[in-house]
Amino acid sequence: MQKKKMTNPLHRRKKSRAKDKIGKAPGTVTYLGDREKTQSTVHTIEYDDESVAEDFTNDIDAILVHNDSKSTSWIDVVGINDEAYIENLGKRFGLNSLLLEDAVNTLQRPKIDEYDNHIFGVFKMLYINDAEELVSEHMAMVLLENTVLVFQELKEDVFEGVRTRIRTKHGRIRTRGADYLFFALLDAIIDNYFTVLEHINHKIEVLEEQVYENPKPEVAQKIQELKKEVLKVRRWIFPVKELVSRLIDTESPLIKKDTKLFLRDVLDHSVEINETLQIYREMSMSLMEMYMSNMSNKMNEVMKVLTIMASIFIPLTFIAGIYGMNFDHMPELHWEHGYLYVWGIMIFLLLFMLIYFRKKGWL
Amino acid sequence: MQKKKMTNPLHRRKKSRAKDKIGKAPGTVTYLGDREKTQSTVHTIEYDDESVAEDFTNDIDAILVHNDSKSTSWIDVVGINDEAYIENLGKRFGLNSLLLEDAVNTLQRPKIDEYDNHIFGVFKMLYINDAEELVSEHMAMVLLENTVLVFQELKEDVFEGVRTRIRTKHGRIRTRGADYLFFALLDAIIDNYFTVLEHINHKIEVLEEQVYENPKPEVAQKIQELKKEVLKVRRWIFPVKELVSRLIDTESPLIKKDTKLFLRDVLDHSVEINETLQIYREMSMSLMEMYMSNMSNKMNEVMKVLTIMASIFIPLTFIAGIYGMNFDHMPELHWEHGYLYVWGIMIFLLLFMLIYFRKKGWL
Amino acid sequence: MQKKKMTNPLHRRKKSRAKDKIGKAPGTVTYLGDREKTQSTVHTIEYDDESVAEDFTNDIDAILVHNDSKSTSWIDVVGINDEAYIENLGKRFGLNSLLLEDAVNTLQRPKIDEYDNHIFGVFKMLYINDAEELVSEHMAMVLLENTVLVFQELKEDVFEGVRTRIRTKHGRIRTRGADYLFFALLDAIIDNYFTVLEHINHKIEVLEEQVYENPKPEVAQKIQELKKEVLKVRRWIFPVKELVSRLIDTESPLIKKDTKLFLRDVLDHSVEINETLQIYREMSMSLMEMYMSNMSNKMNEVMKVLTIMASIFIPLTFIAGIYGMNFDHMPELHWEHGYLYVWGIMIFLLLFMLIYFRKKGWL
Amino acid sequence: MQKKKMTNPLHRRKKSRAKDKIGKAPGTVTYLGDREKTQSTVHTIEYDDESVAEDFTNDIDAILVHNDSKSTSWIDVVGINDEAYIENLGKRFGLNSLLLEDAVNTLQRPKIDEYDNHIFGVFKMLYINDAEELVSEHMAMVLLENTVLVFQELKEDVFEGVRTRIRTKHGRIRTRGADYLFFALLDAIIDNYFTVLEHINHKIEVLEEQVYENPKPEVAQKIQELKKEVLKVRRWIFPVKELVSRLIDTESPLIKKDTKLFLRDVLDHSVEINETLQIYREMSMSLMEMYMSNMSNKMNEVMKVLTIMASIFIPLTFIAGIYGMNFDHMPELHWEHGYLYVWGIMIFLLLFMLIYFRKKGWL
Amino acid sequence: MQKKKMTNPLHRRKKSRAKDKIGKAPGTVTYLGDREKTQSTVHTIEYDDESVAEDFTNDIDAILVHNDSKSTSWIDVVGINDEAYIENLGKRFGLNSLLLEDAVNTLQRPKIDEYDNHIFGVFKMLYINDAEELVSEHMAMVLLENTVLVFQELKEDVFEGVRTRIRTKHGRIRTRGADYLFFALLDAIIDNYFTVLEHINHKIEVLEEQVYENPKPEVAQKIQELKKEVLKVRRWIFPVKELVSRLIDTESPLIKKDTKLFLRDVLDHSVEINETLQIYREMSMSLMEMYMSNMSNKMNEVMKVLTIMASIFIPLTFIAGIYGMNFDHMPELHWEHGYLYVWGIMIFLLLFMLIYFRKKGWL
Ligand SMILES: [Mg+2]
Ligand SMILES: [Mg+2]
Ligand SMILES: [Mg+2]
Ligand SMILES: [Mg+2]
Ligand SMILES: [Mg+2]
Ligand SMILES: [Mg+2]
Ligand SMILES: [Mg+2]
Ligand SMILES: [Mg+2]
Ligand SMILES: [Mg+2]
Ligand SMILES: [Mg+2]
Ligand SMILES: [Mg+2]
Ligand SMILES: [Mg+2]
Ligand SMILES: [Mg+2]
Ligand SMILES: [Mg+2]
Ligand SMILES: [Mg+2]
Ligand SMILES: [Mg+2]
Ligand SMILES: [Mg+2]
Ligand SMILES: [Mg+2]
Ligand SMILES: [Mg+2]
Ligand SMILES: [Mg+2]
Ligand SMILES: [Mg+2]
Ligand SMILES: [Mg+2]
Ligand SMILES: [Mg+2]
Ligand SMILES: [Mg+2]
Ligand SMILES: [Mg+2]
Ligand SMILES: [Mg+2]
Ligand SMILES: [Mg+2]
Ligand SMILES: [Mg+2]
Ligand SMILES: [Mg+2]
Ligand SMILES: [Mg+2]
Ligand SMILES: [Mg+2]
Repeated sequence: MQKKKMTNPLHRRKKSRAKDKIGKAPGTVTYLGDREKTQSTVHTIEYDDESVAEDFTNDIDAILVHNDSKSTSWIDVVGINDEAYIENLGKRFGLNSLLLEDAVNTLQRPKIDEYDNHIFGVFKMLYINDAEELVSEHMAMVLLENTVLVFQELKEDVFEGVRTRIRTKHGRIRTRGADYLFFALLDAIIDNYFTVLEHINHKIEVLEEQVYENPKPEVAQKIQELKKEVLKVRRWIFPVKELVSRLIDTESPLIKKDTKLFLRDVLDHSVEINETLQIYREMSMSLMEMYMSNMSNKMNEVMKVLTIMASIFIPLTFIAGIYGMNFDHMPELHWEHGYLYVWGIMIFLLLFMLIYFRKKGWL
Repeated sequence: MQKKKMTNPLHRRKKSRAKDKIGKAPGTVTYLGDREKTQSTVHTIEYDDESVAEDFTNDIDAILVHNDSKSTSWIDVVGINDEAYIENLGKRFGLNSLLLEDAVNTLQRPKIDEYDNHIFGVFKMLYINDAEELVSEHMAMVLLENTVLVFQELKEDVFEGVRTRIRTKHGRIRTRGADYLFFALLDAIIDNYFTVLEHINHKIEVLEEQVYENPKPEVAQKIQELKKEVLKVRRWIFPVKELVSRLIDTESPLIKKDTKLFLRDVLDHSVEINETLQIYREMSMSLMEMYMSNMSNKMNEVMKVLTIMASIFIPLTFIAGIYGMNFDHMPELHWEHGYLYVWGIMIFLLLFMLIYFRKKGWL
Repeated sequence: MQKKKMTNPLHRRKKSRAKDKIGKAPGTVTYLGDREKTQSTVHTIEYDDESVAEDFTNDIDAILVHNDSKSTSWIDVVGINDEAYIENLGKRFGLNSLLLEDAVNTLQRPKIDEYDNHIFGVFKMLYINDAEELVSEHMAMVLLENTVLVFQELKEDVFEGVRTRIRTKHGRIRTRGADYLFFALLDAIIDNYFTVLEHINHKIEVLEEQVYENPKPEVAQKIQELKKEVLKVRRWIFPVKELVSRLIDTESPLIKKDTKLFLRDVLDHSVEINETLQIYREMSMSLMEMYMSNMSNKMNEVMKVLTIMASIFIPLTFIAGIYGMNFDHMPELHWEHGYLYVWGIMIFLLLFMLIYFRKKGWL
Repeated sequence: MQKKKMTNPLHRRKKSRAKDKIGKAPGTVTYLGDREKTQSTVHTIEYDDESVAEDFTNDIDAILVHNDSKSTSWIDVVGINDEAYIENLGKRFGLNSLLLEDAVNTLQRPKIDEYDNHIFGVFKMLYINDAEELVSEHMAMVLLENTVLVFQELKEDVFEGVRTRIRTKHGRIRTRGADYLFFALLDAIIDNYFTVLEHINHKIEVLEEQVYENPKPEVAQKIQELKKEVLKVRRWIFPVKELVSRLIDTESPLIKKDTKLFLRDVLDHSVEINETLQIYREMSMSLMEMYMSNMSNKMNEVMKVLTIMASIFIPLTFIAGIYGMNFDHMPELHWEHGYLYVWGIMIFLLLFMLIYFRKKGWL
Repeated sequence: MQKKKMTNPLHRRKKSRAKDKIGKAPGTVTYLGDREKTQSTVHTIEYDDESVAEDFTNDIDAILVHNDSKSTSWIDVVGINDEAYIENLGKRFGLNSLLLEDAVNTLQRPKIDEYDNHIFGVFKMLYINDAEELVSEHMAMVLLENTVLVFQELKEDVFEGVRTRIRTKHGRIRTRGADYLFFALLDAIIDNYFTVLEHINHKIEVLEEQVYENPKPEVAQKIQELKKEVLKVRRWIFPVKELVSRLIDTESPLIKKDTKLFLRDVLDHSVEINETLQIYREMSMSLMEMYMSNMSNKMNEVMKVLTIMASIFIPLTFIAGIYGMNFDHMPELHWEHGYLYVWGIMIFLLLFMLIYFRKKGWL
């Protein structure tokens, strides 16, 4: 189920793993996620205006050749729980061990760190997989002079559109350098956040309908789960705006002025996404409020039925009780039409109560 | 219905469209709104102190002539789902593809971007149409040296007053340049936000009356819808204040110092509108609170009736039950005035309960 | 009633007037308030250390003579719906049309604008009139070199103390210039806000008592109205602090350094007033919470009475019902003391229930 | 009672006094508090490293001698409703009338103003008096070159520890100048705020216990009073942090660099106190929430008893009613064991209901 | 119990101790915690790249030798209620008395103060001890040129991992100086905050389950206690982020540029922890809301049972009552199948009510 997906990376694993890290030297490369342990695979795309070449090799020397060439290289490392390999590869690229630690630390919040000759970013890819579940996948990317080095947990990702644009020479991507590739990947990640918003929005709409039509306790529970989901998604998404904004203001020569124009577009989207999440948050609070109001209303309904039934029949039963008494001297019992008169009184009382309740608006 | 109007641009279309954009190169000009696909029409007004000339032509070359002339031109493009035409026109004006993307992206939040030789703004026109519905229409405008280029979704707009002032030479508009026209359009948009506030205020007043007089569950639902509407309107209006403020501080030569005085007036209004929206937000929360309090009160009423009826008649019925028993030896049954005594006791009890309930303030 | 007073300026008139302004050129002098249309009257006080002269004339030339003289002049224009006169007068003083628009726009939020040779301020006079109603009156004032020009809606105002000080040569006012007069008027406005606070505080105290003693639904309604009143008063008062603070930091030669010391005292009061309003806001929220809690409590009371009555008498009635059955063979009916035994059982049950309820704390 | 104590200074007196001040010239020295009118008494302590001399005299000339001497003087004026004396004394020390107005204005919020040759501060002494009441006493102090001039309302104060340290030559106080004395007094005031926190904390603990054990309506009322008390105490305490922080950053030569180290310690405490107050505020809100939850729970309890009693006995009574009918042909009545069978059915029903309610968890 | 643990340091002791400190000279070294009085013990580790030496001695002269040597020394003082010893030791290290006061003041909020030749920090060690209780232990540390001086309350601490790394020459710690040790200790403290988060998260999960499955009043109480615990933990943790951030920006030569890279990693964690605490806070509020909603729901359940039972049987009992009357002339009583007909009517009514309630969704 999707709920488990969201909870696990945050809590369940932390419980067993966070403790393991305590006391370890900083810079210890430890995967903290819960994806199955697999060997990393590396996919390289090297391209310039004229040509594209793709390559699947785990051999670090072969990979470094791509990094050294002048044309732009996208080195895509899939699987980050092979800690030794990641550490090895990272060291050969001259990357700091603290950076590598964060690259595989699935609990790391989104960040962008600038180093002298590379820029490092950590983000969450959020996407809806084929089973309609919301997947949160840790990813890190390093912008080097002519290379973007990507680390991701699973084979699935949100970059297929970027790959197609590179392969088919669609758009500007082939004519621009590694910084544009870095932007394009970030753009793809953030574009996918809109699908997460849609996912949440759809849940809100469904719950809204249920709240109005059949406010069972399960609905309250689902609203609370929704609120938690929004809280958690917000946690992964919220920092991005600030990070992109700082990236635009950077003085690093790794990001060209032209690319900053595109980053400003990404910033626009981040702001938009945060605002929408905020609105969803307030909507989910309103949902709960509406649920409570509908509960009160149902209680009112129940109470009205009880009150009407009891208020009508308890007095009538009393009257019947009176004439069920066994006193020797009860003259009414012997009247010829006594029984009829009693029925008359009862029907009168009944009508009186019905009119009273109708006037109260209870009927 | 108006509710649908507000929901659609935000959610329904996004659901089908947002996904389409993922993976596309940035700067792809894609209309994301839900207005029917039509051909764009262009209306040009060119004027200076002495003369006004209006023109309807879609021919881009003819339009560019207006842009090149020294007198002020207002080029008004109606219909922005003819993406190819918009892209063509924009390119001929030297506009960036990212700018054009935002001009037709109905999900774009309000923004002002300064370029070297033009200033670009995206806003929402909010107005009440003839069917008393709140319409939200996407619009973008570009301030060039002597020209303001406007993109809008529908023929209807909020600029009729500005057109009249140009045609009738009323006010300063004819003696000032394109930056004053840019201001006048922005001013017209923001003046119309006041009618939206009135619209919301009217809804609040109606709901307030209903909450006090007949708090049905439908009222709670309408309050929640109102809260959502305020949230969404706020989203389109809130950023404007910040944008105008930045426009006043700009160093771009496109905006003359005189015009900034007028922009400060617009800023005043934006602040006022945001404050009022905030007040409406708090009022709609109070409405819900009042609804809940009235619900509780009604429940109290119901419970009181039940309690009074039951507390009076259950003991009386018990007494009647006593003398309905069939024991051989029940002396009271044979007393001459036994029946009368029982009635006496019952009436005493009845009065006692009535006095008790009156003292409790329940009657 | 006072409630109407507060609502009108904000909503009712806006409804009919806000629309009228749309599309008009900025700087159109339009009165938006709801005071009856009257001719403006002008009262001038000219004074220096030695002498005071007062004058009632609407003749603009005569008024301008006061402005040109070296001694300090207070030109007090009462009645701002004579738009043509205001515009005329303003133009002769060299005032901008945007300024004049704000001077008569009763919806204008408080503001201070600095111009090259004058400083312009808009404020609300809030005071309790003879009918114990809270009056909100729009006012604007312009500080010129030797003159303060005041615009106000009604003859009534909060400046009588200042006039007395000028006439009786009490305090420093006669020895200082127009900037001190400007301060003194502002000080008088803000001092009156304290009476508004008292007015609100008194309402809170009255409602508090009602909530504890007799929490009828009307009380909830009054609490909500109080909350709206606080929201609205806050709207007129809140910006003042920021405005005064900017006035203290101004570099305009119109305000002398000595006077800034006094403005700092005004700032102190503004901060105090805002804090108090904030406390009243939280208190009115607590009032509503307390009302709800008292409602719940009353419901509890009602339910307890019902439960006690029903729990005692329903079982007893059942027992009476048993011995009211007509079976041929019911040995108890024929026991000599059967009837007594039944009473015994019933009294035992009654006592048992009473003890049980007392232990529960319900009695 | 303590509650009255807290309310009075804020509201009751304001009601009668605030109005008196309106229209008065700024700088009018008016005592606004509600302490009984008494003559001011002045206590002077003059000390240096070697000697201490104390003096009780109201003679202003004698007091000024202390101010002129090189050794440090603490001039402690007790009683600030003798307005003429205060004004006189202040003028002789060269103090501004606005300063003196604030020194005796018990509604003045905490402030620190720097003048050319003195620093002026207003604070509230908050302490628990012998009657276990929370007392809020207005105080002002002026730091001159070698003198600290203190104004306080009552003889009681929080400075006894400082006096002892001066008299017994304990700590650094004798070796340092007037600025250290100013610090020491401020430190004593703020140290006492911790006792106020304890006082509030104790109230919270008591109310918490009552909420869990016996949530009567009086408890809700006390919680609301606590919330108001926290709001008001916070008002006097909150600004202090900002004031001390500004004092540390001052460039006035009156405060030596060494003393700033000690002021930083005071700042630490102010931050701590504000944080604690914030926590108490949230705790008092939680208390109210818990009270409401316990009320709901009690209602649930009551409803369960009613439902169990009614659900068990109403059906049984119905059965008894059946066999109390007087039809000629009711075969069961004539069965030999009819009566027994009915008891059987009733006992079966009773057990069935008991089991059902137990399964529901209501028993 | 753990609850007591958390409450004590904050409230219980303050009550008796805070008062003791009032009036004392600043810089009085007073332990305010509630740990048992013991003699301080000092453990020294001196190390460089080549060798490690450990030492247990309380002799101050011997300790100072470690401070003077070039290799890095970690002087770990356990037990801070031996105030005289602490003061003595501190003075010999040249530490200010205000610093020493804070080092043993268990109420001191986290702080970092920079002095000319040392940096002083106060933090809370939070950890789960062997009894699964959350322990909050006060600690202070001073970074000198080649030495880190640590003060802690109890023998237990969170530094065992750091000691191991020093002893086993694991990681960089042996090759770097005292500033790296200072970082490593801070890192260990903050890493342990993650276990506190886990502890809280676990409590939330347990309560969540209880809220859904068996929402007894005790659960509400536990939720409120959780909220208080989060408030208090947050108080100790929240300031750390700001402190570390300032440490990174320091210009003190005591912290080398290399070490700042590691401090940035600590900053990352602090931000993460604060965000998580914020989420837990919102979750605990949602828990309470859910609890209230479940209470309402249970009440609804109870009311439905009552209403169904009463609405079915009260009318039936009324019918039985009718034919229990003793009128002389009641023809139905003498009909041959009268009794059967009555049963027929009753069964019909029963079925009617059942269908009605099913349609209402109450069955
Ligand atoms: Mg570590
Ligand atoms: Mg995170
Ligand atoms: Mg992947
Ligand atoms: Mg994008
Ligand atoms: Mg966040
Ligand atoms: Mg864009
Ligand atoms: Mg609520
Ligand atoms: Mg894209
Ligand atoms: Mg938006
Ligand atoms: Mg249009
Ligand atoms: Mg306008
Ligand atoms: Mg204006
Ligand atoms: Mg206009
Ligand atoms: Mg306005
Ligand atoms: Mg007036
Ligand atoms: Mg004043
Ligand atoms: Mg208002
Ligand atoms: Mg406001
Ligand atoms: Mg003052
Ligand atoms: Mg005054
Ligand atoms: Mg105050
Ligand atoms: Mg005193
Ligand atoms: Mg202190
Ligand atoms: Mg405050
Ligand atoms: Mg300290
Ligand atoms: Mg609440
Ligand atoms: Mg002290
Ligand atoms: Mg603290
Ligand atoms: Mg320890
Ligand atoms: Mg760490
Ligand atoms: Mg890290």
